[in-house]
Amino acid sequence: MLIVQKFGGTSVANLERVRAVGERVRKTAGDGHKVVVVLSAPAGETDQLLKLASEITNQPDPRECDSLVALGEQKSVALLGLYLKAQNVPCVSLSGWQVPVWTDSEHGKARIRHIEPERIFKELGSGKVVIVTGFQGITEEGDVATLGRGGSDTSAVALAAALKADLCEIYTDVDGVYTADPKVVSGPKLLQKISYEEMMELADAGAKVLQTRSVEVAAKHRVPLKVRSSFNDHPGTEVVSENESLEKILVAGVTLNKNEARISIRRIPEGQGVLAKFFGPLAEAGINVDMIVENLAADGTADLGFTVSKGDLRTAMKYAEMVAKKMGAGRVEAAGDIAKISIVGLGMRTHAGVAYRIFQILADLGVAVQMVTTSEIKVSLVVAMDDAEKAVRELHKAFGLEKNA
Amino acid sequence: MLIVQKFGGTSVANLERVRAVGERVRKTAGDGHKVVVVLSAPAGETDQLLKLASEITNQPDPRECDSLVALGEQKSVALLGLYLKAQNVPCVSLSGWQVPVWTDSEHGKARIRHIEPERIFKELGSGKVVIVTGFQGITEEGDVATLGRGGSDTSAVALAAALKADLCEIYTDVDGVYTADPKVVSGPKLLQKISYEEMMELADAGAKVLQTRSVEVAAKHRVPLKVRSSFNDHPGTEVVSENESLEKILVAGVTLNKNEARISIRRIPEGQGVLAKFFGPLAEAGINVDMIVENLAADGTADLGFTVSKGDLRTAMKYAEMVAKKMGAGRVEAAGDIAKISIVGLGMRTHAGVAYRIFQILADLGVAVQMVTTSEIKVSLVVAMDDAEKAVRELHKAFGLEKNA
Repeated sequence: MLIVQKFGGTSVANLERVRAVGERVRKTAGDGHKVVVVLSAPAGETDQLLKLASEITNQPDPRECDSLVALGEQKSVALLGLYLKAQNVPCVSLSGWQVPVWTDSEHGKARIRHIEPERIFKELGSGKVVIVTGFQGITEEGDVATLGRGGSDTSAVALAAALKADLCEIYTDVDGVYTADPKVVSGPKLLQKISYEEMMELADAGAKVLQTRSVEVAAKHRVPLKVRSSFNDHPGTEVVSENESLEKILVAGVTLNKNEARISIRRIPEGQGVLAKFFGPLAEAGINVDMIVENLAADGTADLGFTVSKGDLRTAMKYAEMVAKKMGAGRVEAAGDIAKISIVGLGMRTHAGVAYRIFQILADLGVAVQMVTTSEIKVSLVVAMDDAEKAVRELHKAFGLEKNA
Repeated sequence: MLIVQKFGGTSVANLERVRAVGERVRKTAGDGHKVVVVLSAPAGETDQLLKLASEITNQPDPRECDSLVALGEQKSVALLGLYLKAQNVPCVSLSGWQVPVWTDSEHGKARIRHIEPERIFKELGSGKVVIVTGFQGITEEGDVATLGRGGSDTSAVALAAALKADLCEIYTDVDGVYTADPKVVSGPKLLQKISYEEMMELADAGAKVLQTRSVEVAAKHRVPLKVRSSFNDHPGTEVVSENESLEKILVAGVTLNKNEARISIRRIPEGQGVLAKFFGPLAEAGINVDMIVENLAADGTADLGFTVSKGDLRTAMKYAEMVAKKMGAGRVEAAGDIAKISIVGLGMRTHAGVAYRIFQILADLGVAVQMVTTSEIKVSLVVAMDDAEKAVRELHKAFGLEKNA
């Protein structure tokens, strides 16, 4: 088999951990597999490099910043290369530009355009383990570009797709994908399988185990994906196509995101392009809007609510108030002490009344729902921060997700 | 003018120093010059990376080690790039592979084969300062290779040659080239000019201000070279062709090298290839031999003496004893408590009796000379460590090199 193994920052945080990764890779290669390893920067290293840049200027040039930040993964791959060579495991470490992994020129949040597989195939063909930097590639102009935070998952999946790998293993610091955050819920279930679609919604809703884009790429190219722990030999969670997802459970997981804040604008007068008028300035300011709800009242005025990350709240409020004033709308309110809960499951598509059950559970708990949005396989809710963990625990239990349920 | 400015590790040791380099570069560019900056790794960074490699294995794979060690200069150039961009100075930082600087495949001590100047000319043509990593390049195989310790000087000179620069300035932590080490001799003279040939011999004899190879390259391509301080605006020392070297002084400098040790073998029986038999095994073991003296006695036996770096003494002794035994030679002696003194000057070529004066001065001092070698413009001596500084001071004075002489 051709296997891509991706290890995150905590898995290469120090030399002891690098050795452990090396031993796992050696074992996989020893079992007769061809192995391509994708590494993140050692935990903390990227932040340290960013801090250095920010000490020089508070608006670092993106191209120069990328050259600096990319050094983290380059360090990881060289260290693993040194270790494996010292153990007489034939190997070669490659930076993104050496593969090459071609990206667009959006420094700091570049997207992979195309990966040339020839060099990797050549090295694999000569019996070597190939170690590749995650998170980075090279632009047409010959500059180093990074993919943005968490991009190493995407690098691994894109490499697996380009190499038509038989398996892409994402090694992390948890045993796999859980039905809820073990820090919030006691005894969540570890999922043996999950569909790409559910995984995407979970990742998007705040489950940190995989980056959303990496799941998108995996789904598009049908890359067989596995999320495993780098600390033990637990088989982990397989991310598979919907029709392979044998466990026909209603809900796959409940996530909690405490990093968002809510803004609502009351009584916006009737008119064309109300939403564009509010969200245009936010988009220009680079502020990501997550949930959006709008409701038209009988008198023709609309109520609008949306969430942004807590860090963007102040700026977002400034724009919202500006637009609201111009349009003669009513009050603009901000709430920072809220949390977003998402319930994700393929079963929602076929089973009516899941949303109703959710609302009933929360009502019984006395938890007020401040905002709701729904997609085909996800219901997201905003509740008061104080109610959030209690609500997650109760929903998790009610949908039978506990380990011993 | 097209000027190459090279800054060493202490000049980019921290952000404050990087800013100072940036200001100097900005001033040069502001004066209307085209500037190519060559940087070493921040002081200590290369050692730290090598230490990391040595913690993984005591025989690091050279190719992987080069990928790791090369990160130091890549950090320097990105940091300076960030600073200059923040000051609105158009610039671009380039790693060796981006230039590209082509080298051979001798990882850890690669030699530059060819530098493609097109990209640098293009960037300079668009009004940018170009910042290039010293010490590294890329092999035909597409691997990063380093030039070995001090290689950044060579990078700068080679770039200056390839770009046909009008001037190559080497910025360092001293004001220029002195007639002797200010730590040993009080008040040595700062040379305004020195010939390439003298500079080569001085560098070779232990003056740390420039790497020997960089002077060789400068001499070969007649690159106008200047050694200056990065801490002040002193004009420094110009390294020029012999016929431009106006100061017709007998001796340009006296150097002291305390890092060598001496081995001598007595009464080696007559025979073919004696020297090859001794130095073959040392070369294979990668041990550099510096001074070599051999003297044939009337009875046909030879006495052989040579110096190696102190760190290699134990290994070199092992080989020397092995060969001596095989050949039936006499005693093998090692001396670690010695120092090498070199006296360098173009004047020696035309003035007879310089060696005699040297020996006379040492005899008057009561300093015993253990070994002597001479070249066209250099006399090197081995003396006891305890005598060394005294001898340097006296020679320096006797040849009129004191500032106020």
